[in-house]
Amino acid sequence: MEETEEISVAEEKVVDISLKDLAEKLEEFARARDWEKYHSPRNLLLAMVGEVGELSEIFQWRGEVDKGLPDWEESDKEHLAEELSDVLLYLIRLSDICGIDLGEAATKKNCEEL
Amino acid sequence: MEETEEISVAEEKVVDISLKDLAEKLEEFARARDWEKYHSPRNLLLAMVGEVGELSEIFQWRGEVDKGLPDWEESDKEHLAEELSDVLLYLIRLSDICGIDLGEAATKKNCEEL
Amino acid sequence: MEETEEISVAEEKVVDISLKDLAEKLEEFARARDWEKYHSPRNLLLAMVGEVGELSEIFQWRGEVDKGLPDWEESDKEHLAEELSDVLLYLIRLSDICGIDLGEAATKKNCEEL
Amino acid sequence: MEETEEISVAEEKVVDISLKDLAEKLEEFARARDWEKYHSPRNLLLAMVGEVGELSEIFQWRGEVDKGLPDWEESDKEHLAEELSDVLLYLIRLSDICGIDLGEAATKKNCEEL
Repeated sequence: MEETEEISVAEEKVVDISLKDLAEKLEEFARARDWEKYHSPRNLLLAMVGEVGELSEIFQWRGEVDKGLPDWEESDKEHLAEELSDVLLYLIRLSDICGIDLGEAATKKNCEEL
Repeated sequence: MEETEEISVAEEKVVDISLKDLAEKLEEFARARDWEKYHSPRNLLLAMVGEVGELSEIFQWRGEVDKGLPDWEESDKEHLAEELSDVLLYLIRLSDICGIDLGEAATKKNCEEL
Repeated sequence: MEETEEISVAEEKVVDISLKDLAEKLEEFARARDWEKYHSPRNLLLAMVGEVGELSEIFQWRGEVDKGLPDWEESDKEHLAEELSDVLLYLIRLSDICGIDLGEAATKKNCEEL
Repeated sequence: MEETEEISVAEEKVVDISLKDLAEKLEEFARARDWEKYHSPRNLLLAMVGEVGELSEIFQWRGEVDKGLPDWEESDKEHLAEELSDVLLYLIRLSDICGIDLGEAATKKNCEEL
């Protein structure tokens, strides 16, 4: 029973991850691979634009798409989840490298208007 | 003193916001304004591409930019923070409308490779 | 009568403009304004991404759009024409600055496959 | 000698291709493959965003790039020429499907300001 609880806590933590946690993991990841030298603001911005392009390719020939993607194959949804993640990870990394607190900025923006 | 503590707790919470919290706030926001009818996957994707364009405009004539943006005006940094947020908020909303758990996807992706 | 003919020839020439003509005009334009120093490959690429964003904004909240834009206001069509042009002009300028003959490349590509 | 002349004429024609010629070839191409049903404005726009992403990927990890791409491999330049072409061809096709005369719009824009 305790085991079950631990699993559910772990899952909750994974799913409810904060932007700060992700930024820290990305920094560790880049340091471990000696990629910090490539992570300049404009390099990361162009990498993000590249991922936005891959995301767009998933939607490009489908015409209008319904909420919840009712007719999509499971494999297409997984591909979509990956591309959405890639955009997010470069966006977080770009913000971090620029010294911008993305979570704070998003909260402020969200409270005002989109 | 307790007041100070409360403030610092509040700030921490703001800064360390989770993707799920942001998704919920965006849903409330759209519902309150009756914008849900506009929030189809491809509408949100194109809105995100629009925000990526505005982000690119901030960097377009600057040549290479140093980490931490040492020579930038404070107002330019604030503008940048807003555009980064706009991309994030549309990305979270797009994921949510597609039924994708972005936090889960990003954590999985992050643990494997970027 | 000859005047009319000249005008129609001129119009035809304008409408049927070549990529090379546009590249030359853009070069003159940049030289006259002393903008050549800003026209590095990545600056122009980011400027083009900015224009693609503005183009996307025109389409973002419309849902699916019919060919020929039958329900659009004339002013929206003019705005669209301007944004399509802006993407084109930065694309041509980027190609030129990179030393790529865009017309040749497009013709080759077109004959093979899209 | 006549052969040389013919070649040079042919090359000139290829290199100095007009936007209208390209639009017509793309229309024939789509018709021959029965792709017209996929060529809606927003499908083509997203396809173009996809190509802009591929173009950005070529530049993403390079830091600043000099005019004329002096240090690039020939194969990288060819790849770049292909991606620039892909953006152009979707841009021309998108304009055509929207009923916009891109050559006319670009000439007008060019004469005013960029």
